Amino acid sequence: MRQYPKPLAKLINELSKLPGIGTKSAQRLAFHILSLDDREAEQLADAITTAKREMKYCSVCGNLTDEDPCAICSDPTRKDDVICVVESPRDVMAMERIKEFNGLYHVLHGVISPMEGIGPEDINLKSLVQRLQQGDVKELIIATNPNIEGEATAMYIARLIKPAGIKVTRIAHGIPVGGDLEYADEVTLLKSLEGRREL
Amino acid sequence: MRQYPKPLAKLINELSKLPGIGTKSAQRLAFHILSLDDREAEQLADAITTAKREMKYCSVCGNLTDEDPCAICSDPTRKDDVICVVESPRDVMAMERIKEFNGLYHVLHGVISPMEGIGPEDINLKSLVQRLQQGDVKELIIATNPNIEGEATAMYIARLIKPAGIKVTRIAHGIPVGGDLEYADEVTLLKSLEGRREL
Repeated sequence: MRQYPKPLAKLINELSKLPGIGTKSAQRLAFHILSLDDREAEQLADAITTAKREMKYCSVCGNLTDEDPCAICSDPTRKDDVICVVESPRDVMAMERIKEFNGLYHVLHGVISPMEGIGPEDINLKSLVQRLQQGDVKELIIATNPNIEGEATAMYIARLIKPAGIKVTRIAHGIPVGGDLEYADEVTLLKSLEGRREL
Repeated sequence: MRQYPKPLAKLINELSKLPGIGTKSAQRLAFHILSLDDREAEQLADAITTAKREMKYCSVCGNLTDEDPCAICSDPTRKDDVICVVESPRDVMAMERIKEFNGLYHVLHGVISPMEGIGPEDINLKSLVQRLQQGDVKELIIATNPNIEGEATAMYIARLIKPAGIKVTRIAHGIPVGGDLEYADEVTLLKSLEGRREL
C-alpha cells in the first residue's frame, strides 16, 4: 500500500494540474478538502461548476462577465471615447483596482507571438477594429505587458489604428513606486529615463 | 464595476478558504479554472465531490480509505504486532513513503492540547486501547510530531499503555539528514546529543 486510495489520488491529480500547485500542495489541499464537512466541500465543487457555466466573454469588449454586454460596457457613466487595450480579463481587474480609469476596455486574450505561432488574427483584434469603426473613440490606451510580445503587439496595433486618426498611447514603463534604482534592470532604468517628465 | 461578477467572486471566495491560498492565489486559480474547457473543470469539481463521498476513516486504524478496513489493515503481509501511532492520515502517507515500516498504524486525528481544550477523550485513543486488548501487539511506536502537544500526547499514551506490558517506543529526534549543526536550534541539538548511539 504505497499508493493513495483511488478517489484521493484522483483529487490530488486534478488539484496538481492547477497553476502554482505542486504535488505537495495538492496533497495538502486534498486532505484539507476531505476534512471539510460535506456542505463546505459541496460549495467548493458547486462554485467551480457554476462559475464555469455562468461566466462568459462580453461580446463587445471580450472581458469575463456573467451578463452580456458586461457591466463596464453597459455602464452609462463610463466614457465611451477612450478604450484601454489589455491582454487578459485579469488586467481589466488590475486597472479597475486603481479606480482612476473611467473609459472602456478591450481584452485581446493573448498577444502576438510569432515564436508560439500566434498571429494578429489569433487574438481578439478584429472586433477592436469594428468597435473603432462604429464608435467615436478618441484615444486608444495600449496596456499590454512590457515584454517583447506585449511591445510588439502594441506596435502592431498602433500601426493598424493610427491611420484612422485615433490617438494611440502606451502606458508608461519605469521604476515601480517604492522600487530601488540600484536594483532596477538596465532596460527599466532606460525606459524610466526616456519617459522622464518635467517637474 | 469595482467587483467581480458574482459567480467568479463566489469561486474566488471558496478557493481562498483553502489552506495556503490567499486572495491573490485564489484569483489566479479562479481565472485558470474559467480558462479550462468544460470537461476539465467538470473533472475537478467531480474529483472533489467523489473523493468527499467515497473516502472515509478505517474503522480499525482511523486512516483515510475508500474501503473498510483499509488496505493496510487488511494486508496479510504486514506484521500485526507493531503499531505506529501517528497524528493524521498524512503522517501515515509520510511513513509509507520511506518503505521501511511494515507494521500497522493507528491515527489519533489530533493531539492532546489542554490549551485548545482537547483532552485524551477527544482523540482516537479509546479504539487504540481496544485494539491492544484484543490483539497480540508487542510494540507501540509513537510517531506524533516533536512539539509540545506531540510530546505530551506521547507521554500520556506511554503511561497508559506501558502497564499492560507492551513496549512503547518513540521515534528519534535530532539533526535532520543534510541539516547543518550550526543552524540547528538548541532543543534539537540537545535531543540529538541525548539520543546519540555508539558507532
